[in-house]
Amino acid sequence: METNIYKNKDDVYGRARVEDNEELKAYYSKLAELDTGALWTVANEIEPWEPISNSVPMLWKYDELRDLVLESARLVTPGQAGRRVVYLINKQRAHVKAACGWLYAGIQVTQPGESTPAHRHKAAALRFIMEGDKGYTIVNGNKISLGVNDFVITPNSTWHEHGVDAEGKTCIWMDGLDIPLVNALEANDYAVYDDEDGQEELVPMNYSPMSYSGSGLIPVDREWDNPYSPLFKYSWESTYNALKNAAQVTDGTPYDGVIMQYSNPLTGGHVMQTMGAAMQLLKPGKRTKAHKHTGSFIYQCAKGHGYTIIDGKRYDWKERDTFCVPSWAWHEHVNLSETEDAFLFNFNDLPTITKLGLYQEKAYLENDGHQNIS
Amino acid sequence: METNIYKNKDDVYGRARVEDNEELKAYYSKLAELDTGALWTVANEIEPWEPISNSVPMLWKYDELRDLVLESARLVTPGQAGRRVVYLINKQRAHVKAACGWLYAGIQVTQPGESTPAHRHKAAALRFIMEGDKGYTIVNGNKISLGVNDFVITPNSTWHEHGVDAEGKTCIWMDGLDIPLVNALEANDYAVYDDEDGQEELVPMNYSPMSYSGSGLIPVDREWDNPYSPLFKYSWESTYNALKNAAQVTDGTPYDGVIMQYSNPLTGGHVMQTMGAAMQLLKPGKRTKAHKHTGSFIYQCAKGHGYTIIDGKRYDWKERDTFCVPSWAWHEHVNLSETEDAFLFNFNDLPTITKLGLYQEKAYLENDGHQNIS
Amino acid sequence: METNIYKNKDDVYGRARVEDNEELKAYYSKLAELDTGALWTVANEIEPWEPISNSVPMLWKYDELRDLVLESARLVTPGQAGRRVVYLINKQRAHVKAACGWLYAGIQVTQPGESTPAHRHKAAALRFIMEGDKGYTIVNGNKISLGVNDFVITPNSTWHEHGVDAEGKTCIWMDGLDIPLVNALEANDYAVYDDEDGQEELVPMNYSPMSYSGSGLIPVDREWDNPYSPLFKYSWESTYNALKNAAQVTDGTPYDGVIMQYSNPLTGGHVMQTMGAAMQLLKPGKRTKAHKHTGSFIYQCAKGHGYTIIDGKRYDWKERDTFCVPSWAWHEHVNLSETEDAFLFNFNDLPTITKLGLYQEKAYLENDGHQNIS
Amino acid sequence: METNIYKNKDDVYGRARVEDNEELKAYYSKLAELDTGALWTVANEIEPWEPISNSVPMLWKYDELRDLVLESARLVTPGQAGRRVVYLINKQRAHVKAACGWLYAGIQVTQPGESTPAHRHKAAALRFIMEGDKGYTIVNGNKISLGVNDFVITPNSTWHEHGVDAEGKTCIWMDGLDIPLVNALEANDYAVYDDEDGQEELVPMNYSPMSYSGSGLIPVDREWDNPYSPLFKYSWESTYNALKNAAQVTDGTPYDGVIMQYSNPLTGGHVMQTMGAAMQLLKPGKRTKAHKHTGSFIYQCAKGHGYTIIDGKRYDWKERDTFCVPSWAWHEHVNLSETEDAFLFNFNDLPTITKLGLYQEKAYLENDGHQNIS
Repeated sequence: METNIYKNKDDVYGRARVEDNEELKAYYSKLAELDTGALWTVANEIEPWEPISNSVPMLWKYDELRDLVLESARLVTPGQAGRRVVYLINKQRAHVKAACGWLYAGIQVTQPGESTPAHRHKAAALRFIMEGDKGYTIVNGNKISLGVNDFVITPNSTWHEHGVDAEGKTCIWMDGLDIPLVNALEANDYAVYDDEDGQEELVPMNYSPMSYSGSGLIPVDREWDNPYSPLFKYSWESTYNALKNAAQVTDGTPYDGVIMQYSNPLTGGHVMQTMGAAMQLLKPGKRTKAHKHTGSFIYQCAKGHGYTIIDGKRYDWKERDTFCVPSWAWHEHVNLSETEDAFLFNFNDLPTITKLGLYQEKAYLENDGHQNIS
Repeated sequence: METNIYKNKDDVYGRARVEDNEELKAYYSKLAELDTGALWTVANEIEPWEPISNSVPMLWKYDELRDLVLESARLVTPGQAGRRVVYLINKQRAHVKAACGWLYAGIQVTQPGESTPAHRHKAAALRFIMEGDKGYTIVNGNKISLGVNDFVITPNSTWHEHGVDAEGKTCIWMDGLDIPLVNALEANDYAVYDDEDGQEELVPMNYSPMSYSGSGLIPVDREWDNPYSPLFKYSWESTYNALKNAAQVTDGTPYDGVIMQYSNPLTGGHVMQTMGAAMQLLKPGKRTKAHKHTGSFIYQCAKGHGYTIIDGKRYDWKERDTFCVPSWAWHEHVNLSETEDAFLFNFNDLPTITKLGLYQEKAYLENDGHQNIS
Repeated sequence: METNIYKNKDDVYGRARVEDNEELKAYYSKLAELDTGALWTVANEIEPWEPISNSVPMLWKYDELRDLVLESARLVTPGQAGRRVVYLINKQRAHVKAACGWLYAGIQVTQPGESTPAHRHKAAALRFIMEGDKGYTIVNGNKISLGVNDFVITPNSTWHEHGVDAEGKTCIWMDGLDIPLVNALEANDYAVYDDEDGQEELVPMNYSPMSYSGSGLIPVDREWDNPYSPLFKYSWESTYNALKNAAQVTDGTPYDGVIMQYSNPLTGGHVMQTMGAAMQLLKPGKRTKAHKHTGSFIYQCAKGHGYTIIDGKRYDWKERDTFCVPSWAWHEHVNLSETEDAFLFNFNDLPTITKLGLYQEKAYLENDGHQNIS
Repeated sequence: METNIYKNKDDVYGRARVEDNEELKAYYSKLAELDTGALWTVANEIEPWEPISNSVPMLWKYDELRDLVLESARLVTPGQAGRRVVYLINKQRAHVKAACGWLYAGIQVTQPGESTPAHRHKAAALRFIMEGDKGYTIVNGNKISLGVNDFVITPNSTWHEHGVDAEGKTCIWMDGLDIPLVNALEANDYAVYDDEDGQEELVPMNYSPMSYSGSGLIPVDREWDNPYSPLFKYSWESTYNALKNAAQVTDGTPYDGVIMQYSNPLTGGHVMQTMGAAMQLLKPGKRTKAHKHTGSFIYQCAKGHGYTIIDGKRYDWKERDTFCVPSWAWHEHVNLSETEDAFLFNFNDLPTITKLGLYQEKAYLENDGHQNIS
């Protein structure tokens, strides 16, 4: 049955190959009056041979952004802004406020003693911590401490707010949300917490990560039937150690090196219903092979430095730089250090893509799996 | 914890309430140069209080369309067109070729002796048969006969083609596809079957529906690990009988009367990963209550006549008319006959919406659940 | 890794091969005093090379049983007996009251006007109707009419009772329960309904089967989160038609002909958590191939006549005869009619066996898959 | 519908209340000749009001057993014995070689330089390490190092063998297997590895635990579709830390204190299909409340000392002592130390019980949840 040949040309049998003439154009007008159209006039456009992305690869250098981010703290308060964030705009996705595909990313700064309003919305959110000390998030009454390179989730419809203890240091983190997706799907909503002082803490500090700190060990003292992970924070310490341990016994995948997916310990699946995330370790001198796949990915370098080649173009990154790989773009990673590991964090829409049956990938076959840099 | 009050006003604490000034505008320019922006300048827009749809309700009367559909058969051949279809265009979704939300709908005519090219694509497709006799679909080597009001699926990546026996009658059916969604998610692909004579039949005619004709009875002579229903055709006879039986013991739901979801007998879930469908029976004189919910729905009247009130506007339909209900639009149905049942078919994106955790609904509370018609 | 060779002899390396002597026997005594033992003295016994059943094949001829069953109705009332049933005893399972393995089977008679007490228990139950008219079961407030060759479930912990309308005919049916299994697992319980008049009917008669009468059509007007099928009765008419339809397009499996598993339309899985059931159609003259597998099976001929060869011995059956096939016994079926189909019903513990990862099967390879009859 | 009253007396309507007489006895004889019986003669026995266990609580003191275990090493070799194990016999389960219910437990000693034959079987196995150093297990080509209080699995049908490095120390561990259950279900099988030198190591040492060392972090470089955990060893260090962390933020359950279930990181479920295990921390002076539930449990004290009251009788334990709690027995735990935590390991048949819908529990309501000691 599988006799598939990508002909890839729109003049073959099976594609739309109608030459318009006056009679047809008159026909098209009649169709338009009834809010209809002739499919064959658009078919080849809406049935591409391979996935097509409307996003372009982007690189946001932290050196360039940091001052502007800090300036936002001088210009507005969290109370005025709602969320005082500098958000990242993909050159071709400005109209939907996306950094890549239907994913939103932004960089938020919170200063010691500040706190943000508590709210909830259908859009899911995650946080990757870049700088600071004694920052915290409160999600559904759970207060969680934040440290650099920690990964935190505030899922669809959970109440959440952030702040930094007065004795802490200014915190900066990257927010990732599926706002563009949820708006596209016409399903977003929003509510402000009705107490301006924020949420009451319902459990001890760090109740969630302290309850789920052991791999394969589940506390059986509570019920959990939410469609997201009960582990709200994945600490850098835990993630770093897990990757270093794995790196002793495996080289991971050819395309990503040693890579761990943040997962829901109760299901083994992604942390949330629409967005997932991962951390990968590139060993010293590692040069991965190229591949492409559906799904949109936004990366941040957690540690080290290197570059990624995306569709034949080289993008250099170092700690705290953010870049994106659009759907179906060839990509491979290189760790420029010969002595230190490099770590790349990413968040993505893989849960959406895979649940909808839309994931596929392809290996770069030429040149031993390595693109030529144009 | 659930102390949610919809304040619904953008001047409250928790919303973006920044008044721009020269200093801020200069700041915004600097942000723009780095492909970034200030979230608070767009936050209220991208974080709506309630779901917002970009589609409008539409009604396509078959009396008006039928001649134009038949005319397409005079103007082009299936071989020229690829798929000779008149597709339905939502006034606000023309740019994505959608009838509603991210769902595509079209009306296809196939004449006796004609056949269409075989192809496959990541987009999923379904068919609701409107007219004709001895039409057929071949999906992955399974030939299926088509009758009026039958519901047929050709899922993501299955090879499929259509035709009408030479001794048959001209067939007209409604196609439903998630093309706009799959393109938006940058995941579509396409292939033509490499034999222009079409697929070889691998099993006897109607192998699928004949194997799954009994409710709760599963043939155990085959493996099935595909993410879609093994039952490719849901016949009108079977559906009609199931609804008539249920109508004897239940009134169904207040909002839809007696309603059955077409489902995968191996999972109880929707027929495919992205799109679902249902058939509902409105008893004589039935007037359902109004509600709204997320998800996009495209309806066709299979039998009878009546009207649907959508966001306060009345849309009259009779057999073969097609209309759509956008996400979050109030809707209620009325069967105008006092003696005959009315039947409404619909296809929708509920699998997508529910799997992504985005389904919600709300009952219309005033006036005993009935909207006033404007 | 898979270098498995069945050596099948207990004197090989890897088996227990200790020759006892006085020193060891003294040692064994010391172990016994502490309620311990030396594993190697029992290892070969408790680690068999292949599955071993403690049951034997049995055949209960209805001609012989029927009078005795009817006599029970003369001797005791349902109120005296609790359940007035003649239960089937496997010659090697009398101590656990099982017909085969850990499955109980019995034949119950209920006369017009009679009704049985309502009760519930952790053990699951099912019924296969053999004779009669206007019999009924009430399960959790759902009254279900019973006809010959209907299959009915009253799952774990559901309230249930039975009866026959005064204008009906004496009903006889086969009960199947997992009582021996649930008692073995030390988990059974029991309660009598506190109203001796029985349950109140909460929904119209046949609410369940009338709501689920169409294959692949699910009513969406109710929630269902019970771990058993919402379809309480699988009618003979529906089952017969489903098998006849399938028989037109498939020959089924080599071992069973055209066979359908009764399933939960909401999951595609077995009807209940511990027991499943199936109906198979043997075409005229059909002679299936032999195989063996784990799981205990109790059969009843619903229609026609033929024989089954079990571990080389022939067991002739006709309509209403009951027989069992123990775990890991070779079996093949033969329809003795050259013109009529034969139908075999069976219930089994497949859900238990498969969920615990204990299912395996083996084809009979010699003689073209046919056993020699000893 | 839920009008359940435990009447608990066998003379009520709904129970079997037939007084035998000569006519009935003659009838019973006729039934017996046909391998049948009258249900009402056994019904009350096989339909207990509450779960009934055939096991009794047992306590095996390590002080008494240790020398006998070590003596086994003097008396036989692993090659002679197959598995040189002293197995624990429940006083009422000797006929099925069980320590409790259908669970087998044994204590195995392996000396430096020794190794056991490699084999596989349908029965699942687990190990809890009691003494020693540089012991190892090889499961399906994965070599795993063993330390005291580590928990290890060798699931259904995996090849496995054990040994101790020549430079190590004599290792003693507790084996737990579902042999009695799998034999009862007539589904066991066995094979010896065909190379007497044992398995080839397919991956680096400790590949499994090193790949899954971080909570909620899943390596995505491999496929895993086995019905058991990919994490073969749950180290004491990891388990101890997880419990100590949780103990800072929760008191756990009233019945067990701070308790963690060993789980499959890919599903959140039990480690294997039939057996599960858990480790609980009793804070200094902790006295849990009593409850009872279905399921058989075999405990071993990993650290500390205390006692458990089972059905009103006190069983004192200290490190390395083993005891069992049968199905439906009241039990509560006490940590006798006022300064040190106590840790109890247990393995059980909860996966079996819960998957079959047979789990239920009941709190001890009198005396503030504490049994009187008889």
